[in-house]
Amino acid sequence: MLDSSQLAAITASPYKKDFPLLANNPDLTFLDSAATSQRPRAVLDAQRRFYETMNANPLRGLYSLSVEATQAIEDARNHIASFIGAVDEAGNPQGNEVVFTRNTSESLNLVARTLGASILKPGDEVVISIMEHHSNLIPWQQVCRQTGAHLVYLRANDDFRITQDEIEEKIGPRAKIVSVTQVSNVLGVENPIRQIADRAHQMGAYMVVDGAQSVPHLKVDVHDLGADLLAFSAHKLGGPMGIGVLWGKADILNAMPPFLTGGEMIDSVTETDAVWAPVPQKFEAGTQDAAGSYAFDADLTYLESIGLDTVERRERLLASYLTQSLAALDFVDVIGPLEGERHVGAVAFNVRGVHPHDVASILDGSKVCIRAGHHCAQPLLAWLGQSSTCRASVAFYNDKEDIDRLVEGLKTVWQVFNGN
Amino acid sequence: MLDSSQLAAITASPYKKDFPLLANNPDLTFLDSAATSQRPRAVLDAQRRFYETMNANPLRGLYSLSVEATQAIEDARNHIASFIGAVDEAGNPQGNEVVFTRNTSESLNLVARTLGASILKPGDEVVISIMEHHSNLIPWQQVCRQTGAHLVYLRANDDFRITQDEIEEKIGPRAKIVSVTQVSNVLGVENPIRQIADRAHQMGAYMVVDGAQSVPHLKVDVHDLGADLLAFSAHKLGGPMGIGVLWGKADILNAMPPFLTGGEMIDSVTETDAVWAPVPQKFEAGTQDAAGSYAFDADLTYLESIGLDTVERRERLLASYLTQSLAALDFVDVIGPLEGERHVGAVAFNVRGVHPHDVASILDGSKVCIRAGHHCAQPLLAWLGQSSTCRASVAFYNDKEDIDRLVEGLKTVWQVFNGN
Repeated sequence: MLDSSQLAAITASPYKKDFPLLANNPDLTFLDSAATSQRPRAVLDAQRRFYETMNANPLRGLYSLSVEATQAIEDARNHIASFIGAVDEAGNPQGNEVVFTRNTSESLNLVARTLGASILKPGDEVVISIMEHHSNLIPWQQVCRQTGAHLVYLRANDDFRITQDEIEEKIGPRAKIVSVTQVSNVLGVENPIRQIADRAHQMGAYMVVDGAQSVPHLKVDVHDLGADLLAFSAHKLGGPMGIGVLWGKADILNAMPPFLTGGEMIDSVTETDAVWAPVPQKFEAGTQDAAGSYAFDADLTYLESIGLDTVERRERLLASYLTQSLAALDFVDVIGPLEGERHVGAVAFNVRGVHPHDVASILDGSKVCIRAGHHCAQPLLAWLGQSSTCRASVAFYNDKEDIDRLVEGLKTVWQVFNGN
Repeated sequence: MLDSSQLAAITASPYKKDFPLLANNPDLTFLDSAATSQRPRAVLDAQRRFYETMNANPLRGLYSLSVEATQAIEDARNHIASFIGAVDEAGNPQGNEVVFTRNTSESLNLVARTLGASILKPGDEVVISIMEHHSNLIPWQQVCRQTGAHLVYLRANDDFRITQDEIEEKIGPRAKIVSVTQVSNVLGVENPIRQIADRAHQMGAYMVVDGAQSVPHLKVDVHDLGADLLAFSAHKLGGPMGIGVLWGKADILNAMPPFLTGGEMIDSVTETDAVWAPVPQKFEAGTQDAAGSYAFDADLTYLESIGLDTVERRERLLASYLTQSLAALDFVDVIGPLEGERHVGAVAFNVRGVHPHDVASILDGSKVCIRAGHHCAQPLLAWLGQSSTCRASVAFYNDKEDIDRLVEGLKTVWQVFNGN
C-alpha cells in the first residue's frame, strides 16, 4: 500500500493547469491515456507557431521558410534520439536513426513489410508474445503467410510473466525476428525485453520492440533495452496525433528495402528505375508533417522541464494507487497482477456481472473516461478468457482525486445493477 | 493578356488577412503553394479547438470525448466527399468512400500495393504519363517489377498535350490500371482525364487520378472526371500537414485487400487469422489524426465561405498573369505552354544561363519564395531536356503584387549575373 507521503505526492496534480482540456474541465476525469494522452499547451502553441512563422514544405528548399521547416524536422529527430538513448559513444544524438511515420502501426508494418518480407524464408520463425496489440500481430501474420514463416507465441504464466524458460523454449535457432511489446496495453505489465533481446541475439534474430505503451511512462534507452528497432507514437505521450516513430540501428535501417515510395525518398529516378535516398529519408515518402514533428519536439522539452524521473516516479505511484483502489472493491475483478508496482499506466478490470460497455457508459455520466472492449488485443483476451474488459490508465497529469472519482463511479455502477 | 478589370480583380488580395503567416509578413512573397499551401486562421483555430475541447482517441469509444472525436472524423469524411462530388443520386455525401492517409504518396502506394498487387499479371500493362510526380511513378515501377506487368507512358506532344491518338495508342486491351495526374506539378498543365478515363474503362482498366495539384485549384467532381480512385493531400489546399485522402468507389475499395494492418481495421483476430473491418476503416490501421481531419473539415468550410467558383476564377487569373509576366521577360524561358490560361497554379521557367538553385537563393534575399530543382518529376525533366527548373506557383491568397515582386526579383537575378 502507498504510505501517506506517497499519497500526498499524488494529491492535486500540479500539471493539469498545463493541459488546456483538463484545466478547462475540472470535473472531467480522464483515465484513458493509454489510448491517447492529453496535450500540454506547449504542444498546441508549437504547432500553431510552426504554421504562423515557418510554414513551408520541408524539402530542403532554397528559401528561408523551407530551410527552417527542414531544420525543425531534423532538430526533432535529434531530440527524439536523445530522448530514447539513441546516442553514440560521445553522447551525440543519432537523428539519422529516427524515421517519422504516421503512428506505431505504420512503424511496425514498415518493419514487417521490409525487414520481414526480405529476410524470412519458409520454416523460419517470427516470435511475438500473447500480449501483442493487433498492430504488432497482424502485420506478422501477414508476412508469415506470404513467406512461409511461422508465427510463434511467447506465453505468460499464471502470474502474467514471460519466464526465462519460456524465452529459451520459444526463441530457437529458427527465429529470425522477435517482436514484443515492452508494456501490455491491456494488463499494464512490463515484459523482460532485455532477457528476450539477449536470447534473440544469441540465436541471430533481430529484436523489435513495440514501445507504444512504454516510452510514455518509462525511461527507455534503446541500447540498454537491447533493441534493434523500436516503434512508438507521439500522441500517447503528449505530442500531436499523426506522428509515429521508428527508431532503428543505422546499419539495419540501411539494409532494409524501402517501404512507401515516391517523392523525397529517392536520389534519382528514370522511367524504369529508381535509386533510394539514404536513411531516414528512404522511408519517408511525400510531404512530412513538419508541424507535427516540431510540436512533438516541444512536447519532449516540456516533459524534460518536469524531469523524466519525476514523470516516471509519479506515474508509478498513480498506477499503484489505481491498482490498489480497484483491488479493494469487492465487486471488481482486476485482470492482471494485483501488485500495484507491476502496472505501467494501465489496469484492466471488470465489474462483476456488468458488461464493460455498460460500465464505461455509466461512468461517462459522471464524466469519468475509461476504455472498454477488446483493446485491439483479442488473442490476449481469449487467453484471459474474456471477450471484453474495462481499462483505466493514468499519465503524470492525473492525481489521486481522479482515481477516487473512478472508485465512486464504480460504486454507482454497482448500485445501478444491484440496488442498494 | 489580362484586361484591366481582370488585373483589378487580382490586385491587393483580400484573403491574406485570413492567413496569419502572410498577414504577419507583408513583405513575404510566397509563390510555392504547389509544394504546400499556407493555412488560414480557421484551420489553426480548429486544430487547437479539437485538442482543447474534444481530444480523445477516435475509437468509437463509450465516453463523450471519444464519441465527439469519432464524429469529427466522420463529419470530415462527409464534407470531403461532398467537396469532390462523391455523392449518391439523392446528393448524399458518401463519406464511407473517403479513406484518410498520411499524404498523396501514401494514397497512391496504397492503390499500387493493394489493387495493383492483387490484379496485375505478367504481360499486363499499367499506364501512367510522362508528367507524373515520383509518387505516382515509383509505386507503379515497383509493383510492375513484382508482378511482371509493364509500365507504359502516355507522352505529351510538343505543345505539352496528351492527344486522343496517344491515348488510343497507349491504352490497349492489356491495360489493367491507368494512373495519371490531373495537373502536372511542374508544367501546371491539365491533362484530359475524362478522355483518358473513358478509354481506360472501354479497355476494362481502372482509372486512378492523382489530384494533388488539381483538387486545390479546380472544382473536381469524381464522377464527371470518370475516376475510380482519386488521391490528394489536405496540406496543398490550406488543411494541415499529415492528412491525405484516397477516395474510391465503394465497390472497388471493398474488393481491394487491406494495406497497413493492425488496430481499428479488423473485425476479429485470432492467433492465426484476422477478419477485416468494412471500408473505410479497413484501410486505416492505428490511431488516426482526428485533430487533422477536424481541421481539414474547417478548411473546406473556409474555402466554401469564399466560394469555390471565386477561388477557381481568381487562381486562373493569377496563373495567367504569372505566365504572361514571366514570358514577357526576355531573359526568362517558360518551360511549358506560353498561354496563361493553360496553367493551373504552377509555371516552370529558367533564367537563361543561371542555375535554378541560384535563382531561388537570390530571390530569397528579397523574401520571394519559389521552388527550384527536379520537382520530384525526373522523367518529365529528362523529356524536357532539363535537370532542374525554377517553379513559381500561386493560390487564391496571392495577388498581382506578389507576381510583380517576383518579376522585380528576377530582374535583380539577371543583373547579378550580367551586370547592368
